[in-house]
Amino acid sequence: MKSNIKGDRPDTLPRVVIVGGGFAGIEAARALARSPVQVTVIDRTNHHLFQPLLYQVAAATLSPSDIASPIRQILRSQKNATVAMAEVTGVDPERQLVFMGDRTMPYDYLVLATGAQQTYFGKDEWAAIAPGLKSVLDAVQIRDRVLRSFEQAELQGDAQQCSDILTFVLVGAGPTGVELAGTIAEMARLTLKSEFRRIDPACIRVILVQAGPRILPAFSEHLSAEAQKALESLGVEVRLNCRVEDIDEGGVTVAGERIPCRNVFWTAGVQASPAGKWLNAETDRAGRVTVKPDLSVPQYPNVFVVGDTAHMESDGKPVPGLAQAAMQSGRYAGQVIDARVCGKPALPPFRYVDLGSMATIGRKFAVMQVGNIQWSGLPAKLAWLVVHIAVLNQLENQLSVLLQWTWTYLTRERGSRIITVPVGSSLTSQALPQPISDASGVA
Amino acid sequence: MKSNIKGDRPDTLPRVVIVGGGFAGIEAARALARSPVQVTVIDRTNHHLFQPLLYQVAAATLSPSDIASPIRQILRSQKNATVAMAEVTGVDPERQLVFMGDRTMPYDYLVLATGAQQTYFGKDEWAAIAPGLKSVLDAVQIRDRVLRSFEQAELQGDAQQCSDILTFVLVGAGPTGVELAGTIAEMARLTLKSEFRRIDPACIRVILVQAGPRILPAFSEHLSAEAQKALESLGVEVRLNCRVEDIDEGGVTVAGERIPCRNVFWTAGVQASPAGKWLNAETDRAGRVTVKPDLSVPQYPNVFVVGDTAHMESDGKPVPGLAQAAMQSGRYAGQVIDARVCGKPALPPFRYVDLGSMATIGRKFAVMQVGNIQWSGLPAKLAWLVVHIAVLNQLENQLSVLLQWTWTYLTRERGSRIITVPVGSSLTSQALPQPISDASGVA
Repeated sequence: MKSNIKGDRPDTLPRVVIVGGGFAGIEAARALARSPVQVTVIDRTNHHLFQPLLYQVAAATLSPSDIASPIRQILRSQKNATVAMAEVTGVDPERQLVFMGDRTMPYDYLVLATGAQQTYFGKDEWAAIAPGLKSVLDAVQIRDRVLRSFEQAELQGDAQQCSDILTFVLVGAGPTGVELAGTIAEMARLTLKSEFRRIDPACIRVILVQAGPRILPAFSEHLSAEAQKALESLGVEVRLNCRVEDIDEGGVTVAGERIPCRNVFWTAGVQASPAGKWLNAETDRAGRVTVKPDLSVPQYPNVFVVGDTAHMESDGKPVPGLAQAAMQSGRYAGQVIDARVCGKPALPPFRYVDLGSMATIGRKFAVMQVGNIQWSGLPAKLAWLVVHIAVLNQLENQLSVLLQWTWTYLTRERGSRIITVPVGSSLTSQALPQPISDASGVA
Repeated sequence: MKSNIKGDRPDTLPRVVIVGGGFAGIEAARALARSPVQVTVIDRTNHHLFQPLLYQVAAATLSPSDIASPIRQILRSQKNATVAMAEVTGVDPERQLVFMGDRTMPYDYLVLATGAQQTYFGKDEWAAIAPGLKSVLDAVQIRDRVLRSFEQAELQGDAQQCSDILTFVLVGAGPTGVELAGTIAEMARLTLKSEFRRIDPACIRVILVQAGPRILPAFSEHLSAEAQKALESLGVEVRLNCRVEDIDEGGVTVAGERIPCRNVFWTAGVQASPAGKWLNAETDRAGRVTVKPDLSVPQYPNVFVVGDTAHMESDGKPVPGLAQAAMQSGRYAGQVIDARVCGKPALPPFRYVDLGSMATIGRKFAVMQVGNIQWSGLPAKLAWLVVHIAVLNQLENQLSVLLQWTWTYLTRERGSRIITVPVGSSLTSQALPQPISDASGVA
C-alpha cells in the first residue's frame, strides 16, 4: 500500500484530512506514513513554521526561510500524502466535509490542528497598533518597525520625539515576550550603537509589562528571578503586576502611568482558532475544543482536535500550549486513526510527556527546567542551542541557522537587517492589514 | 581629520551628499573615506542591494538578506560618513539643497546615484500585471507569484486553467530576463516536480520574448546562440523578433499571437530615475543626464551624476548600464571631489574599463566574455560562481550564499520557498501597489 505512486492512489482508501501544517498537523501526517489511507494536509500558507524561533526573525538575526520549510518538501517522500494550500472556512461534521470557500473536500477522518492566534481580550482595536508574533508576516512587520524606528530616530532632532520612537513596550512575559525583549535590547546596545551617529543610547528603552507577579510563570520561581536579573542586566525594565489599560498611536497606559512610545508588541494571550465554532463543540474560555481522552470530539469520534486548538488533559491536568504538546498530540491522533483503520487494538488515553522548558535571553543566557533539573546561564544557553538546532526541520536550515548564530555571536552583527518596504512607498508596515496572525493554522 | 568621532565633526568641512546607496553611491562614499569632508548617503531603503543576484531571490534560491546589507553596516567604520534613510523628492542646485519632503539638507558637493527603474515604454498600465525586478520587494512578490501559481495549479482540475496558470512569459532577454527564465524553468522541472502530485509537467511553459534578433545582445553572436541552446535544453521557448502588443489579466499578445497566461514578468527596458528633472538638465531618451567628461553636470560643476542615472561616455562610446560601470563612475566622482577639496591636480576624464560580462542559465551553464575570451558551459559557470561570491559585500553573505548554492546544487531543493502572504489574506501579491521598483536609488 505504501508504494502508491501519484495519480493512481485507489479512491477506496480512507481519506484523512489534516487542517493545519504546524507542529501538530505535520506529526499527525507523519504518524500515518505507513497507513493504508490518503492523507491531505491543508494550510493557508505553503510552509511549516518553527515558531519558537520566530522572535529571531523579528529581531533580524534569522531570515524567514531559515525557520520555515515548505510543507510539500517536508512530506515529499510520504507517498500517501498530498498538500493543499487553501483557507479552510468551515466544516460540516455530519456530511463529513471540509469547506474551502466554494470548494469542498470529503473526509473519513478529520484532524483539526489549526493552532491559536493572538487575543487582545476584547480590545481588538489594539491589534493594529500592537501586533503579535505568530506568522512570518508578523515577524517581518515587527522587524521593519524596529529597524525603521532607529532610522527615524537618527533623523530626529527632538530628544523627546527620539525617546518616544525608541521606547519599545512588550506586553506579556511568557517565553516569546521575554526572548523578544532580550533580543531587542541586545540589538539596540550591541549591534546598532556603533552605526547610528546621532542617537543618544539613553533614549533607548525596552519595557516588559507583565500582569502577573513574575516573568516566565511556567518556570520555577528561582528561574523566573534569574531570567529577570538577566533581562535587567541587558537594560530591560521589567514591570510586574501591571495591566495595560490603554494603547493608542501615541503610547501605552500601564497601571495608571502613561508611557509615550511608538512601538508596542503584544504576546499576552492566545485564543484558539475557530475550530470549535466549525464543529459547534464545547470550548473552554480560550476557545479550545474540549476533547475526549483519545483527542476526538465527543459527538464525532472521527474528528480529532489537537495542539493549541484543543483543551486536552493528561493525568487529570491540562496540557500546556507548547510545541512539544502539539507534536505529541498530533502524533497520537495519527496513531489512533492508524489503529482504527488497520483494526489494531485501541490506544491508551493520550498522555503528555513534559520534556522540559527553555527560554533564552540575549547571546549568553538561558533558563532551562527539565523535571527537577534547573539550569540558568551559559550551560542552559548551550543546551538551548543544541536542542533548537537539533529539532529544526531540514539540514539546510540547521546549517544556515548555525552559520547565522555563529556570525552574530562573533561579530554582534545581525544577518537579516533588511527593511523590506522603502520610505515613501504607499505600503508602509503600518499600512499592512492587521492581524494576519495565524501562521501555523488555517483560520 | 579622519579620526573625527561622532558628535564633534567640525561643521566647517565641505558637505558631500550622495543620493542612492547602490553600487555607484557606495563606491563614491568609499572613495571619500580619507577626505576632509562630511559624507551623507541618503537612500529610501536601509540596504545596499546586490542586484545581479536579485533573480535568485525571485526564484527562491536565496533569501533577501543574502544579497542585501544595511548601508550603515557597510559604512560603519568610515567615520566621516553618516547614513539617512529618507526619500529624496527634489534638488535645488542654485541654493545647493536636497529636499526630502519638508526637510532639506544643504550640500557643497552632490552625487546623484539614484539608479534606474523599469520602463513600459508608455504602457504604464502593464506595470501592475507584469512586474519588473529591481527591488527586494519586487523579488519577493515575483517569488510569491511563481510559488502561488504552482499551489493553485495543484488544486485546479481543469487542464486549460492549469496550463494558463503555469505559463510564465518573460519579456526582455537581457541578463535578468535570461537568468530568470532559466531558473524558473529549472525550478519547475527539478525542484517542484516531485512535490506536486497532480500537476502534469506538460502544462508548464516558460516563454522568453525578445524584440531583437537574439538574446543577450551585449554578448557575441556565438555566445548568444550558445545561451539560447542552453535555455531551450531547459525547456524555455525563446521567441525572437517578437514585440509584446498587449498585456492584460488573462494573457499576453505577442506578434499577433495570444498567449493565455497569469504570470508575465518584465525586464525589457529601464528608465533613469528623475534626477534629470530635479536638475532641469539635458537628458537622453532613457532619461539619463548627459554629463561632462568629469561626470559633473554642465551648469553645476559641484553636482555629479553617476551610474544608471547618467549618460556617460568613455573614449567616445556610451558606457553600458552595468554594475561595474556604476561602481567605476561612483568611485571616480568621489575621487574628483577629493581632488578638488584637497587642491590636488584635476583627474583625467572618466574612462570605463570593461571587465567583461557574464550570464548564467541554470545550475551548470553560463556564458562569459572578457575582452577576446569567450567561454560557455561549465567553465564559465565556475568563473561566474567565483566572481559573484568574491564581489558580495559581506563575508557573512558570502558564506550564506555559498551554503545555499551548494545545497541547491546537491539536492535540487530551493532554500527559500516561502510564500509570505497566506491564502485568504486581503494582502495578496497582486494587491501590493506597483511599481516600487527603484531599490538602489531614491525616486
